[in-house]
Amino acid sequence: MVIGYLLGDLEYFEMASTTYSSCMMHKGSFSLRSVNCNKQFMCNNYSQSFSVSTDLTHSRLVLSNEKAMKRELRNGIKCLALEVKDPPLYSLGEKFQLDDVIEAQQFDRYTLSAIFEVAREMEKIEKGSPGSQILKGYLMATLFYEPSTRTRLSFESAMKRLGGEVLTTENAREFSSAAKGETLEDTIRTIQGYSDIIVMRHFESGAAKRAAATADIPIINAGDGPGQHPTQALLDVYTIEREIGKLDGIKVGLVGDLANGRTVRSLAYLLAKYQDVKIYLVSPDVVKMKDDIKEYLTSKGVEWEESADLMEVASSCDVVYQTRIQRERFGGRVDLYEEARGKYIVDHDVLKAMQKHAVVMHPLPRLDEITVDVDSDPRAAYFRQAKNGLYIRMALLKLLLLGW
Amino acid sequence: MVIGYLLGDLEYFEMASTTYSSCMMHKGSFSLRSVNCNKQFMCNNYSQSFSVSTDLTHSRLVLSNEKAMKRELRNGIKCLALEVKDPPLYSLGEKFQLDDVIEAQQFDRYTLSAIFEVAREMEKIEKGSPGSQILKGYLMATLFYEPSTRTRLSFESAMKRLGGEVLTTENAREFSSAAKGETLEDTIRTIQGYSDIIVMRHFESGAAKRAAATADIPIINAGDGPGQHPTQALLDVYTIEREIGKLDGIKVGLVGDLANGRTVRSLAYLLAKYQDVKIYLVSPDVVKMKDDIKEYLTSKGVEWEESADLMEVASSCDVVYQTRIQRERFGGRVDLYEEARGKYIVDHDVLKAMQKHAVVMHPLPRLDEITVDVDSDPRAAYFRQAKNGLYIRMALLKLLLLGW
Amino acid sequence: MVIGYLLGDLEYFEMASTTYSSCMMHKGSFSLRSVNCNKQFMCNNYSQSFSVSTDLTHSRLVLSNEKAMKRELRNGIKCLALEVKDPPLYSLGEKFQLDDVIEAQQFDRYTLSAIFEVAREMEKIEKGSPGSQILKGYLMATLFYEPSTRTRLSFESAMKRLGGEVLTTENAREFSSAAKGETLEDTIRTIQGYSDIIVMRHFESGAAKRAAATADIPIINAGDGPGQHPTQALLDVYTIEREIGKLDGIKVGLVGDLANGRTVRSLAYLLAKYQDVKIYLVSPDVVKMKDDIKEYLTSKGVEWEESADLMEVASSCDVVYQTRIQRERFGGRVDLYEEARGKYIVDHDVLKAMQKHAVVMHPLPRLDEITVDVDSDPRAAYFRQAKNGLYIRMALLKLLLLGW
Repeated sequence: MVIGYLLGDLEYFEMASTTYSSCMMHKGSFSLRSVNCNKQFMCNNYSQSFSVSTDLTHSRLVLSNEKAMKRELRNGIKCLALEVKDPPLYSLGEKFQLDDVIEAQQFDRYTLSAIFEVAREMEKIEKGSPGSQILKGYLMATLFYEPSTRTRLSFESAMKRLGGEVLTTENAREFSSAAKGETLEDTIRTIQGYSDIIVMRHFESGAAKRAAATADIPIINAGDGPGQHPTQALLDVYTIEREIGKLDGIKVGLVGDLANGRTVRSLAYLLAKYQDVKIYLVSPDVVKMKDDIKEYLTSKGVEWEESADLMEVASSCDVVYQTRIQRERFGGRVDLYEEARGKYIVDHDVLKAMQKHAVVMHPLPRLDEITVDVDSDPRAAYFRQAKNGLYIRMALLKLLLLGW
Repeated sequence: MVIGYLLGDLEYFEMASTTYSSCMMHKGSFSLRSVNCNKQFMCNNYSQSFSVSTDLTHSRLVLSNEKAMKRELRNGIKCLALEVKDPPLYSLGEKFQLDDVIEAQQFDRYTLSAIFEVAREMEKIEKGSPGSQILKGYLMATLFYEPSTRTRLSFESAMKRLGGEVLTTENAREFSSAAKGETLEDTIRTIQGYSDIIVMRHFESGAAKRAAATADIPIINAGDGPGQHPTQALLDVYTIEREIGKLDGIKVGLVGDLANGRTVRSLAYLLAKYQDVKIYLVSPDVVKMKDDIKEYLTSKGVEWEESADLMEVASSCDVVYQTRIQRERFGGRVDLYEEARGKYIVDHDVLKAMQKHAVVMHPLPRLDEITVDVDSDPRAAYFRQAKNGLYIRMALLKLLLLGW
Repeated sequence: MVIGYLLGDLEYFEMASTTYSSCMMHKGSFSLRSVNCNKQFMCNNYSQSFSVSTDLTHSRLVLSNEKAMKRELRNGIKCLALEVKDPPLYSLGEKFQLDDVIEAQQFDRYTLSAIFEVAREMEKIEKGSPGSQILKGYLMATLFYEPSTRTRLSFESAMKRLGGEVLTTENAREFSSAAKGETLEDTIRTIQGYSDIIVMRHFESGAAKRAAATADIPIINAGDGPGQHPTQALLDVYTIEREIGKLDGIKVGLVGDLANGRTVRSLAYLLAKYQDVKIYLVSPDVVKMKDDIKEYLTSKGVEWEESADLMEVASSCDVVYQTRIQRERFGGRVDLYEEARGKYIVDHDVLKAMQKHAVVMHPLPRLDEITVDVDSDPRAAYFRQAKNGLYIRMALLKLLLLGW
């Protein structure tokens, strides 16, 4: 059913008047006020149907299959506006956000809040409950051009926990077609014939965006080279909200390799979307946070300061976000590396300095930058954080395949 | 239920009279005329049961588990004849064709037509429809001795689209048992204990036939070395029928490396089963079609001619079947290779020469032998062709596991 | 529902009296005599529920989720005793046996008998039967640090035959996190967030025990280095019982490399649990059974003798258990290797010496230590043995995930 396009401000909603009378939506009298929550509509007039769900409580209007709709719109179907009276909680940008998941920047705080709401629902899904079968019949292809078992298993578990099925390629770089010189675009065109959604990890920055530009089905970026790893950024912010209970007004210490860790860079981007956030940057000189992020934080009004004193930062923060420092970054200066490592370890003493409600996070894998005796403290949130990755990925799969 | 063996001409049908009275088939009064379509019969007299489906519309009689039946017959059960009055649409050879899928030559035009009929039904299966669960409980093992992600994913997608499950080995050559010197036969005997059907890709010509000779469950050859890749040949012929609407009387231009491409060789074999087919062979001298195929075509009454003029052929053909030319085939003669490649590229000019109803096909992966600007033309059929591979494989899995 | 802990002698059963009145078990009047077989109980008082099944026929009492229960008990819930009158067939040790499957020694003959009873039920499960869906919604992770396709497929088939789903890692050693230096414990803590049970193969002896000590979910050892491969040992004993009809009083010839084969060592351990067993040890001098096993057998009252005469042993045994002799074990002494191989081959002559009811077993893969002409003899049990691995693994998955 082509019912139109969600404009940026979401204040209205266009609809092809010519299809109006033959739509199931019409039978529902097409007044948003009388529409039940999450009801699905379909129209037989068009070969490709869309489902629309309206949630009057939150005044959200979401089209589940915007790509297909855009195609129909290109075929010249005229649309009319339909006003949505209640102010939206969830403000959609120029582009409907959940066609694809490509980079952390694509999300605004309302979209994040909506994803987190779905993730919380996902936490409640139990074996044998109807929720555990919502993706039955859907097929996800994990197209991994470089291996990342943790991320792959997390996505595959998410899909299967929702009743969906998985096609796996652990090492698509040796994929015979890619090895023979096939373009990424041709591979995507083929794989989309076999699946309903593609989760892709690639060694080149920007590969996910290229794939999304080609594909008719949703693409999720599971990391593209030094570029983006947006689902990690989402699960980090989700974990902060779950553990601390809020995002506005929080104080976060980013610790370790801030120059090369894409995790902390993406996290800084996302935290800038919240109010009264304070960020402490704690790192050896060699791997300090780069200026682009600092300038971005300043431009968004986020307070930040650099510090070399982990203990003092730990006592002030709600979240100590620890990362791994890699020896390679120090070149020949093993002495500097050893000094840096020794200085920024989260151990029992750091825990003692931290507040009762504060937490330690880490994107994992962890080596010795958090000592094992920290694990048993309830403030050690890193394994819960890993588990949250499952719920965030379940939420994204649900949103991309079924919509709201 | 041992009800006998389908003889080659399918004019009668044997049945063990001693088991007659205790069969469910008996309860159905065992007159073919009164039997409902696709009803399944089982008999408790024998440890291993067979299902038989009779489709009176098409007068087809198919036993789903012929291998097991042959075993029972060897045990000496006496069979009686039962006549089937209506002439069959579908003429079975000496051996029931869909025990295994080993080579393109095993199919006659009636079998092909039957497979294509099932493939068209497969195109209509939707998520959540009963058709999407027909293989529920069945387990397919993909035993790939050399990696081929495209083919593997296509089969695994086919199985899962029908509700079946998959056991995957991406690289069975390093399979510990094979590496330790286990024979293919022993591997097959073990794997058939864990699965209901085996899809096998192997580096040695003839491996699929050896596997089928050992296995009690169906084997599908997904490519064995330079030998056969029968499901590719089937999807090619299916695509021609879907795109052009017929197979008798078509004109096909085979372009590129005709000496080494097993795809074009198998396609030529299958096209020879149809009437009034004309084949144009367009290739550099170094990689011309070999004499065995030319002689085969002549012996079957298929008209063929060699041509160096792609443009002229393109203007006459219903199908331009392009293939990749591999540099290795030219040895040190890079100049000849470059000349050959430049001469046989399908680009916008070739498209212009082609008729409105004609199509371009390619087994993929494609490098630069079809230019990217061809992709958006509706006559570019190669991605639809890849998708048809899914339907053909769904059809084969259905036929091998459930029968008609 | 915290109903207490199964003490070692299983003569009583503790229960928190405070939760008594609000338990469903209470509604069932909580007298074991009046409880139906395999009924499940749940209590809403505790966040984590347990299921308990009581089978009065066999007087077994099993808690399906003992790990979780232990956690609750640590929280200090008081338990009361409840007597079980009928003597148990199945005597539980200090620890409930099927929390994890780590080593062959953990099983006593009653546990083995119980597992085999479940395995026999598994043999009867058919496609589409309710039994084929008992693990629906459960997710098994196969975490293989070294590839073993045969074992992996057997476990994955077992899980899928029961309706469960699988997350696969074929080569976890190159697992990015392990490669980056993550500890096994951290990996387990992460993976258990994505799955309900972990089947692990590792290159280090003791790895499975370490994983089990960390995990909150069940661990199955699918082989850890030169250490244990307990599911192979279980399927061997199960096969002997299925083929010969008994375990007490059997005569088993262990043939081949008895020094290095972990299979024969584990089998010897398990056979020692039965009465009047006689073991013949037939091997080249270089790879004789080590003294620890011989002493163990003697201490358990198992009669054993070493012999160099395969033919004589074959004529006395119920089971000839053949294994592969690896050339590497002989160092430079190729002559000794060739002599040993030639001497201990099971061929048609050995078969002729064997009794009618006796069988040949082999853990597979087989090279030339059993000649191919033996395969067609009904006494060649090795492929049935491989198939039994499926049933044993189905039984273990059922017991670990659902309990009795």
